[in-house]
Amino acid sequence: MTARRPTAIDIVEVGPRDGLQNDSRHLSTEAKVEMIAKLAGAGLRRIEAASFVNPKRVPQMADAEAVLARVVDLPGVSVSGLVLNGRGFERALAAGLREISFVAVATDTMAARNQGTTARGLVETWAGIAKRAEAEGLFRSVTIAVAFGCPFEGEVPLARVIEIARALAESGADEISLADTIGVATPLAVEERFAALSEAVPGLPMRAHFHNTRNTGYANADAALRSGVTVLDASLGGLGGCPFAPGATGNIATEDLVSMLERDRVATGVSLELLRDATLWLEGEMGRRLPAHGAHVSPWPRVLAA
Amino acid sequence: MTARRPTAIDIVEVGPRDGLQNDSRHLSTEAKVEMIAKLAGAGLRRIEAASFVNPKRVPQMADAEAVLARVVDLPGVSVSGLVLNGRGFERALAAGLREISFVAVATDTMAARNQGTTARGLVETWAGIAKRAEAEGLFRSVTIAVAFGCPFEGEVPLARVIEIARALAESGADEISLADTIGVATPLAVEERFAALSEAVPGLPMRAHFHNTRNTGYANADAALRSGVTVLDASLGGLGGCPFAPGATGNIATEDLVSMLERDRVATGVSLELLRDATLWLEGEMGRRLPAHGAHVSPWPRVLAA
Repeated sequence: MTARRPTAIDIVEVGPRDGLQNDSRHLSTEAKVEMIAKLAGAGLRRIEAASFVNPKRVPQMADAEAVLARVVDLPGVSVSGLVLNGRGFERALAAGLREISFVAVATDTMAARNQGTTARGLVETWAGIAKRAEAEGLFRSVTIAVAFGCPFEGEVPLARVIEIARALAESGADEISLADTIGVATPLAVEERFAALSEAVPGLPMRAHFHNTRNTGYANADAALRSGVTVLDASLGGLGGCPFAPGATGNIATEDLVSMLERDRVATGVSLELLRDATLWLEGEMGRRLPAHGAHVSPWPRVLAA
Repeated sequence: MTARRPTAIDIVEVGPRDGLQNDSRHLSTEAKVEMIAKLAGAGLRRIEAASFVNPKRVPQMADAEAVLARVVDLPGVSVSGLVLNGRGFERALAAGLREISFVAVATDTMAARNQGTTARGLVETWAGIAKRAEAEGLFRSVTIAVAFGCPFEGEVPLARVIEIARALAESGADEISLADTIGVATPLAVEERFAALSEAVPGLPMRAHFHNTRNTGYANADAALRSGVTVLDASLGGLGGCPFAPGATGNIATEDLVSMLERDRVATGVSLELLRDATLWLEGEMGRRLPAHGAHVSPWPRVLAA
């Protein structure tokens, strides 16, 4: 027997953050605000709107505060920002966010290259931030990057991921996410890792982040839902990529995920029609066709001519 | 708990048939033969090499006999052809094939538009062909097209599909396939339809055919394997499309399927490296990049530099 999918899930739209962060085309602040407004209008209730990184390293996110000032009070939406260190946390607080996404890393090499520290160092960073975030009443989401494979170390032992997850949860978290940062996960790995995670941190909501780099992203999303995950990341149009995987496609696309899930009786609260309109608009802004299929195929089931 | 995937499956390579049949770029007989040789060299043991259709309707298949004459005796490979009617069966016999794929259809409108008959009419056609095929000792595969949705009728009731499957099986078949001809299937529908099929025709090997039109093709393939399917169709590079779904992508890609399955401990007997080489060659022949991701991303797990 196959495990049942949940009857409803939350999608975290990460296009404005993970999508735009990795793209060579830089959108204006105005366009980013419009993108986020369209996403909120389509029914997305959680939107990752910016990343608090060094603008010298990631110039696409240099206007994080300017974008957030315009969208942080969108009604019915929890707008979040990616936090990598204490300075990022202070910026999130100053921007008035009520939700943060902290990023830990499963391997030391990735932690060293990306943040000049170790995997354990990031766990300690979280211990400090988690306390302050709790005191401020913020929703605390924690992600473990490269949880399915690392571009520098290759295979990532499951035991290592679980050890980090436990340590992060001990410091306090409202949900924990495993991220397939470079798009190498497959359904069996997803089942195995989330089964182990739910055993390690029972009762803690689980979230997953997939890229469609090797065409397994949607199969992985389905596997995650059959494994107890109730929050999935996706990006409008499948925007994005990964600086470490040239030629790779981006996150799984919000519209293709919604299309699959609604057919499978998993409610998302998102309007497929409005998402398709938003993607066509975004393709105009980006100056190219995006990887999602949804905006370019006929809706299904289609209204049939008499 | 999730149902277990099989430890090994057969992939039927349908690129030379379903892929090329729907493409505006026509390959030469020589190039088709080379494509099939490369596929056999990569380890594919079942290859659908041609379709016995009216060359006026499908000019891409006008050289079916010329192609088959060159590949029918490839060692270790079962080369098959698509059969739609009695005339097609005679052509298959004359070409020396040892395996045929007969195509029935789940809806009357599709049967009328495509073959000038009814769904029931095709079941009767099969009854005649099945007997002769058995007498000739051919392997008889039967496919039900538009088994997950029809471009003319929309939703296709499961009961209708099962009724046709029973009738086809009663006439004799060595395997039965449900085809998502227009790419509208999702994992739950796959689970439900193959569960019902395995109850209706217990013990008969089940095969599935998916298009990645709406980005659900690989999730569907995984769902099929968890539902008792042991034979999956795929096409090199994800070549192909559907004349009724403009802009749609093709079949699921052989290399991306193999990549996913081998990681999930489902043996395919196919060399990913040789498939990637074959796709790069095919992209040259077709004059464009194909939808598969495999040939354009780094292999995984990668060999890491010291």
